[in-house]
Amino acid sequence: MSELAHLGPVELLTPTGEASLRFFVDVMGLEIEAREGRSAYLRGWGDYQRWSLKLTESDTSGMAYLGLRASSPEAFERRVAAVEAAGLGIGRTDGDLGRGPSYRFRDPDGHLFELYYEVERYNPPEDLRPALRNVPQKYTGRGCAIKRLDHVNLLAADVRANREFCVDALGYRLYERIELDDGSETGAWMSASIAAHELIYTSDAYGATGRLHHVAFWVDTREECLRAADIWLDNDVHIEAAPSKHAIAQGFFLYGYEPGGNRVEVTTGGRLVYAPDEPTVVWTEADRAKGQAWGVQTVATFHTYGTPPVEERG
Amino acid sequence: MSELAHLGPVELLTPTGEASLRFFVDVMGLEIEAREGRSAYLRGWGDYQRWSLKLTESDTSGMAYLGLRASSPEAFERRVAAVEAAGLGIGRTDGDLGRGPSYRFRDPDGHLFELYYEVERYNPPEDLRPALRNVPQKYTGRGCAIKRLDHVNLLAADVRANREFCVDALGYRLYERIELDDGSETGAWMSASIAAHELIYTSDAYGATGRLHHVAFWVDTREECLRAADIWLDNDVHIEAAPSKHAIAQGFFLYGYEPGGNRVEVTTGGRLVYAPDEPTVVWTEADRAKGQAWGVQTVATFHTYGTPPVEERG
Amino acid sequence: MSELAHLGPVELLTPTGEASLRFFVDVMGLEIEAREGRSAYLRGWGDYQRWSLKLTESDTSGMAYLGLRASSPEAFERRVAAVEAAGLGIGRTDGDLGRGPSYRFRDPDGHLFELYYEVERYNPPEDLRPALRNVPQKYTGRGCAIKRLDHVNLLAADVRANREFCVDALGYRLYERIELDDGSETGAWMSASIAAHELIYTSDAYGATGRLHHVAFWVDTREECLRAADIWLDNDVHIEAAPSKHAIAQGFFLYGYEPGGNRVEVTTGGRLVYAPDEPTVVWTEADRAKGQAWGVQTVATFHTYGTPPVEERG
Amino acid sequence: MSELAHLGPVELLTPTGEASLRFFVDVMGLEIEAREGRSAYLRGWGDYQRWSLKLTESDTSGMAYLGLRASSPEAFERRVAAVEAAGLGIGRTDGDLGRGPSYRFRDPDGHLFELYYEVERYNPPEDLRPALRNVPQKYTGRGCAIKRLDHVNLLAADVRANREFCVDALGYRLYERIELDDGSETGAWMSASIAAHELIYTSDAYGATGRLHHVAFWVDTREECLRAADIWLDNDVHIEAAPSKHAIAQGFFLYGYEPGGNRVEVTTGGRLVYAPDEPTVVWTEADRAKGQAWGVQTVATFHTYGTPPVEERG
Repeated sequence: MSELAHLGPVELLTPTGEASLRFFVDVMGLEIEAREGRSAYLRGWGDYQRWSLKLTESDTSGMAYLGLRASSPEAFERRVAAVEAAGLGIGRTDGDLGRGPSYRFRDPDGHLFELYYEVERYNPPEDLRPALRNVPQKYTGRGCAIKRLDHVNLLAADVRANREFCVDALGYRLYERIELDDGSETGAWMSASIAAHELIYTSDAYGATGRLHHVAFWVDTREECLRAADIWLDNDVHIEAAPSKHAIAQGFFLYGYEPGGNRVEVTTGGRLVYAPDEPTVVWTEADRAKGQAWGVQTVATFHTYGTPPVEERG
Repeated sequence: MSELAHLGPVELLTPTGEASLRFFVDVMGLEIEAREGRSAYLRGWGDYQRWSLKLTESDTSGMAYLGLRASSPEAFERRVAAVEAAGLGIGRTDGDLGRGPSYRFRDPDGHLFELYYEVERYNPPEDLRPALRNVPQKYTGRGCAIKRLDHVNLLAADVRANREFCVDALGYRLYERIELDDGSETGAWMSASIAAHELIYTSDAYGATGRLHHVAFWVDTREECLRAADIWLDNDVHIEAAPSKHAIAQGFFLYGYEPGGNRVEVTTGGRLVYAPDEPTVVWTEADRAKGQAWGVQTVATFHTYGTPPVEERG
Repeated sequence: MSELAHLGPVELLTPTGEASLRFFVDVMGLEIEAREGRSAYLRGWGDYQRWSLKLTESDTSGMAYLGLRASSPEAFERRVAAVEAAGLGIGRTDGDLGRGPSYRFRDPDGHLFELYYEVERYNPPEDLRPALRNVPQKYTGRGCAIKRLDHVNLLAADVRANREFCVDALGYRLYERIELDDGSETGAWMSASIAAHELIYTSDAYGATGRLHHVAFWVDTREECLRAADIWLDNDVHIEAAPSKHAIAQGFFLYGYEPGGNRVEVTTGGRLVYAPDEPTVVWTEADRAKGQAWGVQTVATFHTYGTPPVEERG
Repeated sequence: MSELAHLGPVELLTPTGEASLRFFVDVMGLEIEAREGRSAYLRGWGDYQRWSLKLTESDTSGMAYLGLRASSPEAFERRVAAVEAAGLGIGRTDGDLGRGPSYRFRDPDGHLFELYYEVERYNPPEDLRPALRNVPQKYTGRGCAIKRLDHVNLLAADVRANREFCVDALGYRLYERIELDDGSETGAWMSASIAAHELIYTSDAYGATGRLHHVAFWVDTREECLRAADIWLDNDVHIEAAPSKHAIAQGFFLYGYEPGGNRVEVTTGGRLVYAPDEPTVVWTEADRAKGQAWGVQTVATFHTYGTPPVEERG
């Protein structure tokens, strides 16, 4: 049923390397697991792998690649075959830090993915040893105290084409989508697990390709989202959308921009989908006009802003 | 990977039919979906099926049967074959309210199970229509406002034998277990999803068989567990264990007895297991001596009390 | 230092008596303590008096009067003298249900007040007895489960004149205020205790007099505010402003309209002011342009809507 | 009505200076405002004064003195006169860091107090500037992120004598107390504000004098108390009592020992007492046998342990 275990890690590009690193470490509370060249490998206290975010200094922002872990070596080979059959494959790599060989491919919109199976489990140093056996790392409680990477929202010129690829070739389940009155699909929420969303596609307002909408990091409670907003406020982080609840997927959110310009979310909640035959929820234009779950109108930039900025792409 | 979609519904027996019904409806906040003979069919606002708890007046307490939904018709047939091969099968039934045919069997300890696939999705009456498309029912906010059935903990004379059956014949994943210094296994936490536990076995202190430890009902936040404790206090519900956090599985809990004597839990939290190769966490006697996550010593009755009471069985 | 113990009860008028009553009882979770003529006397589970809200069917909406409890019989007489000296007194009354004689007066804007000292403490009937000695009533957990009346926000044509009267004649402390670039005062937050606000004046956008902005009801946690939003959503209550945090006073809020049109708030949090010489915080136009604490822009109606509607007054 | 504005600052003694300082700064999240000799002056992000905790390395543990701020210069002189009349006065001092002259005295049990009025308001350095005007300091979110000092619980050989002194000479209000079946008073909860408790006396199990039970630090939410327990767990802080709710005063608590041995509490909640004529709640032996609010039995050390340890006093 689930050929993919989960999404991640993700590599983000930033033109402001040090400021972005300070944001993720001091404000978001991630740990630096390793540094290599212009990249830092970061982890939340609940990530079982060594890292879930690779932050790389670059001349622009955006997502370098999105990792997907297959649920078994056999599932890995089956997905590689399916992607190759779809004509979107690139080829095998030697892996990355703490991770075995991967298979590279692009989604129809051009975002780079890396599928893999073999990983190294995190082994905390003495000062990050947790008290309990079923926790990978000490809970330091620094800043927003992010637990782990949760989901990624990509922008696409053609949402439908991309979600069809993800469902057909990767085995994602489609839980919710937006269909406008003219029949166009402007959003698709997919998951490989019972979690409401792992991979999301929404329409690129500029028709650009390969862009990122946001990367979402998990905390266990809504109170931690509210607390994160206080921390962002006092640390001059641009808050794009204050904490509230999405109608779609019912996730609780806080959105802002890290110093390099990438939109990040602190998230929790979201419905769990236990029914194996759960029908896809289709949201209409009229539904969307009502705003978020409690009627908050979505801020305009949320529908247009992505990274890298479109101006830089021309 | 997951042959089972999820656990439930569950049928509970109670010698105090009306008082138990009032507890589940007024205090726990479940809705009555139907009544038939000496049974009431109850649901939480987040249950996608018509009901998740069947409450049946009887001469004693305990669990009548535990439902398990297969993740597909094919998975259903595969699991039936596996159970039959294990020599524990009973036979097919015509189903129950809002549910198609099931296959009955017993676990090695003698608890009755019903495996099924076909279900009717809940269709709320006008007064229970929700505002959002991805919610099955209106959130009434009555009492503890339970969202859905979450997990079941059975007592067994031989924990190991039962978890081996569940893993081998049913396809459960074993996430955590307790192994004492003498090598005996006194607890096993299993799941068919990324949720930390769905089906739990712990040792029956009296060596009795077929008994229930507790049925757990889900709320989305720890604050709702704390709030439930206030509601229980003011409604004379026997609180066995005040809200705190388990070390095992990291679930947040509140335990008490419904009027018929069955132990019920209001639960939330619990770790999510995304790694497909997550090693089973083994807790030792020394670990357990430390108490719950924050050092709370487990109350003695938690290790001995179950339903039906052992006295009635002799 | 504190001549007033606290604010309340408050009498609200509503053109939709039964619908408003159902809102306050079923959705907000207040109890009906008594009914008399066209009025219902309502209470939260934490109110120590018999009632804190009198809901009266009328031909329009708005506030009939605002009660203020003096902190002693002597403080009562001193405040009567001060109000009379200010030329705003009306005269003594025989009291109301469960309350001794009061002294009626109007603030400069024309809102009616009743100052009193003698009250009857609430004595719960058997079915509303709490488990603990220091709680006035059982916690039923119904709907939003409001604990008590918290604060009242009045609209005034001249904010400054009204807050000066409240500080000078009634002994309120002025904790925060808004002063625009042109020197006008458009908001004043006052309290007789360490709570951040009990009585608030903000500018009436229409220059009308005697109108109500909102009445705020307390819950103990932010989670209960979020939960209240879910309950309002599913009960078709008009949500004007989804849960978020005010910059001013730092209260956490949820705003909406009860069926009769009066704006009500579910609130919690808010800073506590322990310093006896706390300087008044003055917010500027530039501050206000930043929106609420986390940058949420205040919805336009919040600055204009009040009860009774201005159209009805002409 | 309130001659005292609030309690604090407090000076704690510790035999493990550096370890205690690391606990209060790294784990509890206080800021170091100044260091002088063997003392560090610490503050929570919500303290309006420069500091609320003075931590002094010493040969033992316990409380050096407890500060009380008068609500006006006149109240200060009136309380000095009342204390002198009670024969417990010591004399005037030149003050301490950021604070004007004080008057020293002892309660009947021998604890040292300093009454004062003049203080310096906190002026944050650039890196601790908050975003909002009504917050004294940036919210760093480090560790438990303590907001401010909340209350102090002293042990006394004769509880009644000490609470009578506090009520009569200092003007405290007595909100709750414990009276055993034999008429002895073993606990008294007093406040100078609407907060449920500021100064508490409970019986010293050894009949010793001048000892400290605990110092309590405030966080705004119960979720932060739960979070603090996680932080303590992973930082090897001895958790004496896991988060739960007191019946008395209804405060939410987490208790443990700082490295120097002093018991500290992370607290929130607690009822607010708005009635000026609120009757004192008297808890009986039978009440106390029920445990805390949700039935948690108080751990034995809570009734016996205090600082300095009694063994050192002989």
